[in-house]
Amino acid sequence: MSQDQSLPQGTTIGILGGGQLGRMLALAAAKLGMRSHIFCPDPDSPAFEVTPHKTVAAYDDEIALAAFADTVDIVTYEFENVPAATAEFLAARKPLRPGANALAISQDRLAEKSFLSARNIAVASYRPVETIDQLRSALTELGQPAVLKTTRLGYDGKGQRLIKSIDEAADAFAALSPKPLVLEAFVPFEKEISVVVARNLQGEVKTFEAAENVHRHHILHTSTVPAAISSTLEKHASMAAKAIVIALNYVGVLGVEFFVVPGKDRPSLIVNEIAPRVHNSGHWTEAVCLTDQFEQHIRAILGWQLGDPSRMADVVMQNLIGDESLDLGDLLTAGAQPHLYGKTEPRPGRKMGHFNKITPKTPTLL
Amino acid sequence: MSQDQSLPQGTTIGILGGGQLGRMLALAAAKLGMRSHIFCPDPDSPAFEVTPHKTVAAYDDEIALAAFADTVDIVTYEFENVPAATAEFLAARKPLRPGANALAISQDRLAEKSFLSARNIAVASYRPVETIDQLRSALTELGQPAVLKTTRLGYDGKGQRLIKSIDEAADAFAALSPKPLVLEAFVPFEKEISVVVARNLQGEVKTFEAAENVHRHHILHTSTVPAAISSTLEKHASMAAKAIVIALNYVGVLGVEFFVVPGKDRPSLIVNEIAPRVHNSGHWTEAVCLTDQFEQHIRAILGWQLGDPSRMADVVMQNLIGDESLDLGDLLTAGAQPHLYGKTEPRPGRKMGHFNKITPKTPTLL
Repeated sequence: MSQDQSLPQGTTIGILGGGQLGRMLALAAAKLGMRSHIFCPDPDSPAFEVTPHKTVAAYDDEIALAAFADTVDIVTYEFENVPAATAEFLAARKPLRPGANALAISQDRLAEKSFLSARNIAVASYRPVETIDQLRSALTELGQPAVLKTTRLGYDGKGQRLIKSIDEAADAFAALSPKPLVLEAFVPFEKEISVVVARNLQGEVKTFEAAENVHRHHILHTSTVPAAISSTLEKHASMAAKAIVIALNYVGVLGVEFFVVPGKDRPSLIVNEIAPRVHNSGHWTEAVCLTDQFEQHIRAILGWQLGDPSRMADVVMQNLIGDESLDLGDLLTAGAQPHLYGKTEPRPGRKMGHFNKITPKTPTLL
Repeated sequence: MSQDQSLPQGTTIGILGGGQLGRMLALAAAKLGMRSHIFCPDPDSPAFEVTPHKTVAAYDDEIALAAFADTVDIVTYEFENVPAATAEFLAARKPLRPGANALAISQDRLAEKSFLSARNIAVASYRPVETIDQLRSALTELGQPAVLKTTRLGYDGKGQRLIKSIDEAADAFAALSPKPLVLEAFVPFEKEISVVVARNLQGEVKTFEAAENVHRHHILHTSTVPAAISSTLEKHASMAAKAIVIALNYVGVLGVEFFVVPGKDRPSLIVNEIAPRVHNSGHWTEAVCLTDQFEQHIRAILGWQLGDPSRMADVVMQNLIGDESLDLGDLLTAGAQPHLYGKTEPRPGRKMGHFNKITPKTPTLL
């Protein structure tokens, strides 16, 4: 590690976004002796409760952004939809890690897929769609069913439509246009896994083990580690995740979601999406790893040596959505480690917390 | 668990003391969705960096204490030397957990020893000392060497003198009087261990495993778990710790330090001291336990079910004293988990952080 590139204890880390990920980043920063300054437009941001330093302002408020940049040593973010102008404005003043290129690519499904394809990382077949005619041709080429998605600002199943036949094309197009769209071939996947990978300022790269993810109503429900996959697939997932952060010259933690697709001889992987930030499917690391994804992100952007991602136990992470967080009775029992985000209003679909169910480590059998 | 006695998410916990223990309590409270308000006279308190709610005022400032009590739902503390008047003032306004009786007993070595002896928990033989004549008689009765200590406000070896012969009595007495004193028989111990125990509002009691402690210059250097003691001793230590919190009707986490004393047939335990708070020798729990001592304290005082204290790995906790915290190179390597307190000035003897060195769990052999 080149010591002169690393930032010292007492560094103030500016964090864009005050949700639970920003909150957990600030908690991890505190554990390393750092200060955090949270920038978020929402005055009720949960991350505001874990540091005395905050700015409540819009992401395009350049006066507030300039003042924020003056008080911090480095800037990071908890979400991939940081506006490009905000990223550019801040990057001109303080180191922005991860960099603006990671935002640009992950904000746009087309840019992301073309970036990955160009590096021989498998993705679902896709076609850009600007007109209804393009959509019909794309449906013919890729077959049906297929999924029509907005290229930007989609998350938790929002901004997408499953199209089962060409007859449904017009309705789906009407529902999502005039936004730029992409049609993706339907992937008949066996399961979904994800890998959280870190690359620090000096180029050191480490991955956490793969998690096996189950969604409910398009929102992550559980992440189980170890995933029930072969050691070959586990290795492939880790290698793909490493290749992505190296290609991006990335600094920080990044989440990669994969589909496990059945094949003639053996299953293979295709990348569903990447997220240039700590990832919900990495919350298990907090309970059972020597270094968790939040600390790993902070180490990476500070230019510190990466921590040891080894796992001490088996674990199932489960999200607490909406009013699931209100009755914790069963979650406080033996083997469960709850993490609550301090959100006041348990709205339906809102991530209120998670818990990790921990069991002794067993050897992976596959 | 009686649900109606337990405090909900979003509870504001008032914490007296803004050092690293208060800071770590606030971080643990945040992980359970709680808010913390730190009360400390020192404007540079490290705990002020992990919450937006603070009061900088003296512990006898009743206007500040009243305002503090108004903003919190419950009060706890990070140190045993909370003045009795402060405890009484706050306890009249909001639940104080642990209670004032735990402070009264642990603030005074004589009260502590008489409390323990009365419950058949072994302590070193002792005599109260108010005059030089009393000291000389006590030295004759208890033998030499013996240790003369102030009854109040001693910590990290401060406020005590080893007396090797009656000739040294006058010097030692002059150095420590006119404070109330106690002479303790010298204990030829093999090793020191400690147990962190928790009792919640409803009376549920759990202990963490014993740690084996090594001091340097009267300051804790390392805590190793598992301790190299027999399972019988481990059980005795746990039982003694449980008996203490039950006898005190205690709510929260308490640290018990024991000497392991060689015996005719087998070694036995005597209690060195108790601390009514989270304990430096319990910092290992943060790295390897399903629930750590900080979360356990927060659960206990909230009236929540206690967490699972099971341990996932073997561990050695080492304190970082003074400028040991400045060069972290080796501490960032595989298997090490650092925790830095965000203190700006690495003064000699000052606890700046700690790290846990983690290795796979091995069965206890003894």
